[in-house]
Amino acid sequence: MVSNATSKRSRAVVLLSGGMDSCVCAALAARDHQAAAVHVSYGQRTEQRERRSFESICDRLEIRDRLLVRNAALGAIGGSALTDPGIAVPESHAFGAGAPVSISAGVPVPVTYVPFRNAHFLAVAVSWAEVLGAEKVYIGAVEPDSSGYPDCRPEYYRAFNEVVKAGTKGGTIRVVTPLIAMHKAEIVTLGLELSAPFDLTWSCYQREDRACGVCDSCVLRLRAFREAGAEDPIPYAEAAARSS
Amino acid sequence: MVSNATSKRSRAVVLLSGGMDSCVCAALAARDHQAAAVHVSYGQRTEQRERRSFESICDRLEIRDRLLVRNAALGAIGGSALTDPGIAVPESHAFGAGAPVSISAGVPVPVTYVPFRNAHFLAVAVSWAEVLGAEKVYIGAVEPDSSGYPDCRPEYYRAFNEVVKAGTKGGTIRVVTPLIAMHKAEIVTLGLELSAPFDLTWSCYQREDRACGVCDSCVLRLRAFREAGAEDPIPYAEAAARSS
Repeated sequence: MVSNATSKRSRAVVLLSGGMDSCVCAALAARDHQAAAVHVSYGQRTEQRERRSFESICDRLEIRDRLLVRNAALGAIGGSALTDPGIAVPESHAFGAGAPVSISAGVPVPVTYVPFRNAHFLAVAVSWAEVLGAEKVYIGAVEPDSSGYPDCRPEYYRAFNEVVKAGTKGGTIRVVTPLIAMHKAEIVTLGLELSAPFDLTWSCYQREDRACGVCDSCVLRLRAFREAGAEDPIPYAEAAARSS
Repeated sequence: MVSNATSKRSRAVVLLSGGMDSCVCAALAARDHQAAAVHVSYGQRTEQRERRSFESICDRLEIRDRLLVRNAALGAIGGSALTDPGIAVPESHAFGAGAPVSISAGVPVPVTYVPFRNAHFLAVAVSWAEVLGAEKVYIGAVEPDSSGYPDCRPEYYRAFNEVVKAGTKGGTIRVVTPLIAMHKAEIVTLGLELSAPFDLTWSCYQREDRACGVCDSCVLRLRAFREAGAEDPIPYAEAAARSS
């Protein structure tokens, strides 16, 4: 289903949350490398559902090497609606409408921001890449149409690659962000071209049975499929969200 | 015991493993800030003993805010004598004599190197600093007289600070490494000046009852106390190590 575009089967580690962006990213990694997938549970509201998506996406993409790890720190630290039950996940009917908790360089950061989260994920992926002898770490970070998280911007990954260069034995592992400049609708189109298993993905921030359709993540996802002229194959709780 | 050198009680997070370097670092942080201490257990051989050191050092330094977290990833990933029971901790009677597993820019990296470990620790400390509103993260990394780990070099911390700047909400947290250019004997001298509780520290890589006296970490520590003209207050299993 995913073709081998390159003959060289160098190894790559891909961070796979189970959402649509990381699913497309994993499909790219699996097309071009012998991919190994890592998933981090960190006490987020939908962790059971995400883990199920991780396993089934790996099955479909034929990724055998898998690492499932629990991060206890992010839940203990809190400070986010995703990890602290005392902070509500805001409803959002338009991009950027999440309640901002801080302004940095004019960018409102929503309460769903998990402080410095992607550094935890990248640390795991780079450590594993070092042990596996992988040359790349794939992460499906996206800047446009995303939620305004500081750790989804290109400058963050440029800086992180300097850390990897300075702080690993060989200094040759590269963190790559193939989706970072893409709009969500373009990611849907790319995923359809790659036969990425969107039916197995989960993006909702707050529900695990059917996607809520009203959180930031659901709203961005639904809009992306609509703009790409495609049907989102996962079930939603609120039919209204599909036509919003 | 530790005086307040500054009147401003800004907050700082300090990474406290329980070893001599991090103990001196914590004493500095507690002198200059309202300090919060974080300890990460990661399946290393001496984790129980290190955790006891962490708690007792915090008690002595009157650090109330403490975060103890378990990192499951480093143990699962392995690749180090500290986390993989199948890789022996080498005996060492001189700095640099650990069995090298790789050469990077002429520096032999010993088998006690835990792949990309400090990025995991810094991620926790920076996330917590962001939630606490702390302005600094202290880490007791040391380059000279240390074991040649790539993530103990100044360029690593310079690069990491760029990641923190790009990847946090405010972008103002700074990772500081007050000991990085010091020789171990100087750290002992500084610790004695600060009344850092060396009697509560633990440095040995492989034993938890009495320090082995023969692993890299013990050898470096014993030499440091000897060069500083001071007595190491912790118990050693091998009396020979004291006079080596």
